[in-house]
Amino acid sequence: MDPRIREHAEIIATHSVDLQEGDNVVVDAHPVAEDLVVALHEVIGDRGANPLTTSQRTGKRGLRAFLRAADGEFETPSHELALIEETDVYIAIRASDNVTQTADVDPEVSAAYQQAHHPILEERLSKRWCLTQFPAPANAQLAEMSTEGYENFVWDAVNKEWDAQRELQANMVEILDPAEEVRIVSGETTDVTMSVAGNPTLNDYGERNLPGGEVFTAPVPDSVEGEVLFDMPLYHQGREVTDVSLEFEDGEVIAHSAGKNEEVLTEVLDTDEGARRLGELGIGMNRDIDRFTYNMLFDEKMGDTVHMAVGRAYDDTVGEDNERNDSAVHVDMIVDMSEDSFIEVDGERVQEDGTFVFEESED
Amino acid sequence: MDPRIREHAEIIATHSVDLQEGDNVVVDAHPVAEDLVVALHEVIGDRGANPLTTSQRTGKRGLRAFLRAADGEFETPSHELALIEETDVYIAIRASDNVTQTADVDPEVSAAYQQAHHPILEERLSKRWCLTQFPAPANAQLAEMSTEGYENFVWDAVNKEWDAQRELQANMVEILDPAEEVRIVSGETTDVTMSVAGNPTLNDYGERNLPGGEVFTAPVPDSVEGEVLFDMPLYHQGREVTDVSLEFEDGEVIAHSAGKNEEVLTEVLDTDEGARRLGELGIGMNRDIDRFTYNMLFDEKMGDTVHMAVGRAYDDTVGEDNERNDSAVHVDMIVDMSEDSFIEVDGERVQEDGTFVFEESED
Repeated sequence: MDPRIREHAEIIATHSVDLQEGDNVVVDAHPVAEDLVVALHEVIGDRGANPLTTSQRTGKRGLRAFLRAADGEFETPSHELALIEETDVYIAIRASDNVTQTADVDPEVSAAYQQAHHPILEERLSKRWCLTQFPAPANAQLAEMSTEGYENFVWDAVNKEWDAQRELQANMVEILDPAEEVRIVSGETTDVTMSVAGNPTLNDYGERNLPGGEVFTAPVPDSVEGEVLFDMPLYHQGREVTDVSLEFEDGEVIAHSAGKNEEVLTEVLDTDEGARRLGELGIGMNRDIDRFTYNMLFDEKMGDTVHMAVGRAYDDTVGEDNERNDSAVHVDMIVDMSEDSFIEVDGERVQEDGTFVFEESED
Repeated sequence: MDPRIREHAEIIATHSVDLQEGDNVVVDAHPVAEDLVVALHEVIGDRGANPLTTSQRTGKRGLRAFLRAADGEFETPSHELALIEETDVYIAIRASDNVTQTADVDPEVSAAYQQAHHPILEERLSKRWCLTQFPAPANAQLAEMSTEGYENFVWDAVNKEWDAQRELQANMVEILDPAEEVRIVSGETTDVTMSVAGNPTLNDYGERNLPGGEVFTAPVPDSVEGEVLFDMPLYHQGREVTDVSLEFEDGEVIAHSAGKNEEVLTEVLDTDEGARRLGELGIGMNRDIDRFTYNMLFDEKMGDTVHMAVGRAYDDTVGEDNERNDSAVHVDMIVDMSEDSFIEVDGERVQEDGTFVFEESED
């Protein structure tokens, strides 16, 4: 077994979910991720915890067969809920042998299934949990990479010195957390300002998401003004939307366009009122993620990028006295900040062409 | 997908576990059995039941890693128990990519793990359950067959008209259930008599075991007299024991020998007092099982054989007023009855050279 797989398992156990003796653990994985499942079983055995392996979320061939045969009416399965209620640690491994396995499932049936499973999702999120990636060939293909190249990419991004990454990111949290106003400028196409006053900034350093590597907060919903061109393509429900451009006034998207599949963007924005407002501002700081791979678990943490999401804001990123933007959607989109770009916080440039002010001072 | 896999899934759902709308189902399988798992998901979706796939019992590579890393002290995992408590139907699919995957696990650690999982096993046995086989290449190898040959063998044995099989076997139940004494003779080497008075005879037609294909009861423990040579090799804890010969007096084994690995046989018989007495007499009646495959799920149902087990008798096969032979072991051994052999019940020949009396009368 590639030693980086054991390293990955060790980081999940020690850094991400703080595995303890006696913990009841569920590992959910597709069989293509078997090596990581085996490495996790070694760690789980070593720590005196109790493993159970399922392939519920990611065993997509079975799920597809089930959903195509079902009538679209689902109840919350009480055995799955009982399992998660008695679980301390939930480890979800993303990996597939075909990332479009559920392409021929009726989206309404899928949505009804997700809806019935919502109490199980909520229960999982109340535990120590981690979502990570195994570099299976089909995932490499989605990233338009060779399997070996993608393996290197994933394990470089995941098997990091997370304490050092946390400290690097803490510099940015220190700037953003007490800030009032943020301005993001890139080339001629992006110049947007927003208030983050009173909203906490969180440091994501590889706990619930592995890889981590961003700091993020929520804009005050009606404060966003200006224009943004998102350089990186947006993938929504299997469709690629390129060159998304949004214009904000009083926090609301008043104009939008896209190079390809603009109607997908329109659908997203028309979901509900909150879908036309921002729910997240994030700053990608994991420089081992140096390319776009059509996988938001990685893309939003890419070094030298910022991302904004239309839709729902995370509870933890909204101050007690502030409004939380609510929506059925949360769709992230990414701006490349590596060239001809800067981030200003309360009038001071804190990043220019991808280099942070606290990095310059360390030179 | 081979249509015989969908037929197999349909038989499991309809015949073996009587799948109902709203049932919470657990399917436990190794990834090599994915096709059958997928076919089961189609049936489960069609019936409006709720599937969850685990690879706990059969995902042996993870189990091996866990057991080798563990310290040998286990508790009953409450999340796995909670899952099974809320489960209506448990389907265990035997299949592996290497049937000797746990060969380098300390047997004491394995035993301690089994012990801790005993409450989960008991819980499973209280549900509608089915144990079946998927013909994976490694299982074909164990059977000393080609993969395609083994596929034909498994699906012929499993995808049967089980109602017709039940009716065929009912003829034998009718003979054996009210009987007092059974005598089994084969060649010069086997001549054994035993009382089955007051002990019910059960008809196994593919419900909890798929394939089924035997009728079985328990001998009265101290009634067994005579000698048996078991033609078919016995596999116990991965070791092959050939030409097992047992001599009984007052129900107890008073002499034993074997061609190969006799010490394994001695170990079994020395387990406890009950291990030297018979706990089962079974008559194999599934003629699609026409060869020995080192897999007791099939071997004991082979047409034209009888099997006897030393050790524990099943509760259901012991009459209320009769003694139940108890033991920590239950080890089945098989006698070929196809040539120069007969079964006598209360002095009447009911089978000769593999042909039953009720078959002759139908000619």
